[in-house]
Amino acid sequence: MKKLLLLLAIAAFCMPTWSADTKNLKYVDGTTLTIINKPQHDGNRLRRINTDKYPDLTSRVRHYLNMPTGMALRFRTNSPVIRAKWTTLDTLRHTNMASISEKGLDLYIKQDGKWLWAGFGNPKFEGTKHASTMINDMDTTMKECMLYLPTFMQVNSIEIGVAPDSRIESCGDIKRAPVVAMGSSYTHGSGTSRAGMAWPAQLSRMLGVDIANYGTSGQQKMEQFFADIICDTDADMFIFDCFSNPSPKEIHERFAPFVKKIRSKHPSTPLVFLETVDREWKNFDLKKRKFENDKEQAAREEIAKVIANDPNIYFFEPGLYTGTDHETSVDGTHPGDMGYQRAAINIAEKINATPALKKIIDAAKAKDCCKSPCKCPASKK
Amino acid sequence: MKKLLLLLAIAAFCMPTWSADTKNLKYVDGTTLTIINKPQHDGNRLRRINTDKYPDLTSRVRHYLNMPTGMALRFRTNSPVIRAKWTTLDTLRHTNMASISEKGLDLYIKQDGKWLWAGFGNPKFEGTKHASTMINDMDTTMKECMLYLPTFMQVNSIEIGVAPDSRIESCGDIKRAPVVAMGSSYTHGSGTSRAGMAWPAQLSRMLGVDIANYGTSGQQKMEQFFADIICDTDADMFIFDCFSNPSPKEIHERFAPFVKKIRSKHPSTPLVFLETVDREWKNFDLKKRKFENDKEQAAREEIAKVIANDPNIYFFEPGLYTGTDHETSVDGTHPGDMGYQRAAINIAEKINATPALKKIIDAAKAKDCCKSPCKCPASKK
Repeated sequence: MKKLLLLLAIAAFCMPTWSADTKNLKYVDGTTLTIINKPQHDGNRLRRINTDKYPDLTSRVRHYLNMPTGMALRFRTNSPVIRAKWTTLDTLRHTNMASISEKGLDLYIKQDGKWLWAGFGNPKFEGTKHASTMINDMDTTMKECMLYLPTFMQVNSIEIGVAPDSRIESCGDIKRAPVVAMGSSYTHGSGTSRAGMAWPAQLSRMLGVDIANYGTSGQQKMEQFFADIICDTDADMFIFDCFSNPSPKEIHERFAPFVKKIRSKHPSTPLVFLETVDREWKNFDLKKRKFENDKEQAAREEIAKVIANDPNIYFFEPGLYTGTDHETSVDGTHPGDMGYQRAAINIAEKINATPALKKIIDAAKAKDCCKSPCKCPASKK
Repeated sequence: MKKLLLLLAIAAFCMPTWSADTKNLKYVDGTTLTIINKPQHDGNRLRRINTDKYPDLTSRVRHYLNMPTGMALRFRTNSPVIRAKWTTLDTLRHTNMASISEKGLDLYIKQDGKWLWAGFGNPKFEGTKHASTMINDMDTTMKECMLYLPTFMQVNSIEIGVAPDSRIESCGDIKRAPVVAMGSSYTHGSGTSRAGMAWPAQLSRMLGVDIANYGTSGQQKMEQFFADIICDTDADMFIFDCFSNPSPKEIHERFAPFVKKIRSKHPSTPLVFLETVDREWKNFDLKKRKFENDKEQAAREEIAKVIANDPNIYFFEPGLYTGTDHETSVDGTHPGDMGYQRAAINIAEKINATPALKKIIDAAKAKDCCKSPCKCPASKK
């Protein structure tokens, strides 16, 4: 109660002096703010990696990896309003997800040490130029913000608008994510309503550490170029959703070489493999049910072989858990936000129950750069 | 285990003889099948009501009530494939929901007495003519099906396609829904991924009774025409989400006359009023927070007045409950499937804890027409 009264007192003292008028905002280039969950630091700051480094990528994988999926801007501001202008490459549109996730923005603000949802950037349905006020009429205390970039659309530019008399601060340059997730559309976030609802993003908020996202919808079949990308990526833990896209035959052929290649560069970094989601199209389609069951069996067999000789390999079974009520599917293949939350809870519980993995998370938590008061390199603005 | 073996044996015996070829299906007009959750039985069979009866409706309310929101086709078939062709009025598109919910179809099949998700009708992103195979490669046992129609789009025609040598049976004409829900976009299903995920549909599956949906996004401000519509609607229980759209002033002015009008026709039918959803835009927006809090206070005051003199009026507080993690919002205003599920669970628990309401549900359950084996009027096909 005391805390509530204190918050109310602060809020009353800091009532906004600025509201609703979006014409006189000052804008900063979003790429000058801190960027989190960018798994490799070189190349275009609004893309997950520099795909030019990997000539073997298929055009589809290249297209997806040019998207900022899972990435977010981190900044501090005391502005009562936060607006954004951004431009996207308008080629994709999905019937199974909301445009807000596909090409919109998703804003969280830290409160009492936890990320609390704050607002969203509403994209235009058509076109590539978007502008949206994400939150308004806030008190003017200094706040830590995390703004997720679109799930399924390349972003060419982004500007953040704040009240003209307010501060907006970067907390330093690109931040290394201690955990990196690689996977299929289930990792990419197909079916989500907002950019912050794919399981890596939800797990990140649950654990309190950044998690980068290498999801490439439908394309994760353990090709060697994916292993190359992991080899070039620095992290304390890798999590793989690599049994969702390949056929049973591909799982048998590719899993051991995939792990071998990764181990050539990361000999002892924990590798967590997730059992694939229990697709709801199995409920009545007998052909698809058999195919899925064969894939699950192939994964179990291949995992058993590598896990026997490597104490730093883990298999979470279930991995991408969506519950037992069969209500989370949006299209038979992908869960929506609810399924992704259940998966994230399941993974968080399993990580917390594994001492070696929990130790990594605890160590990573202590390094969070943007803590308040900010002890980061001086603001660029 | 015995049950599983039995199911596997049945499945093996009934393996599909037909798969994937959609050219030679036979089609039936969907409007000749049983229609559930149509709250008034006259007028166009693919619309919730005959809006011509209500000249006072605003054009927006008329537009919405011409949509089949919450309505579903019920039928029985032994076809291994179920396909649909349907036409819609293509005027709306939302950034906060999946097109599958907005203009697609959502198929459930009964298994062990419960509805299990089975497939969906994928709409075209553009255009008004849609065709989609919802499920394939099923065993050929007779099954009960429930196919939700689009959430946010008028449907002008629908045909259901099955294998040429299979049966498809209606279970009679339009079925009266024992429970009718009226409300705002939270009832209409804004933010959902599929047509079966608005809270009335989820609650219906939880309770095992049909629930019709009078949601009209953003338009439920307790105007007298809404009370007129309820007066003309036959049900055993009405549930209202009528505190989401009106201002505090409108709540004070309109609630008592709204109830009075309804009571002139339904003197003792239980009326359940739901506290509005805890909108997540309140998290940081102080102006919106105050407005929402004032609305909640107005609702509590007005409810207290009518409830004192009417033993058949109930107030569920919280009503449209979305949990305490603040993660269910898709746009600050509407929850997605996860929030709607939490709301449905909360409402189901409160109904089950209220003997007079539970009695209504139990009585309605016993009347389900489409039970297997079907004891309904002879099939029309």
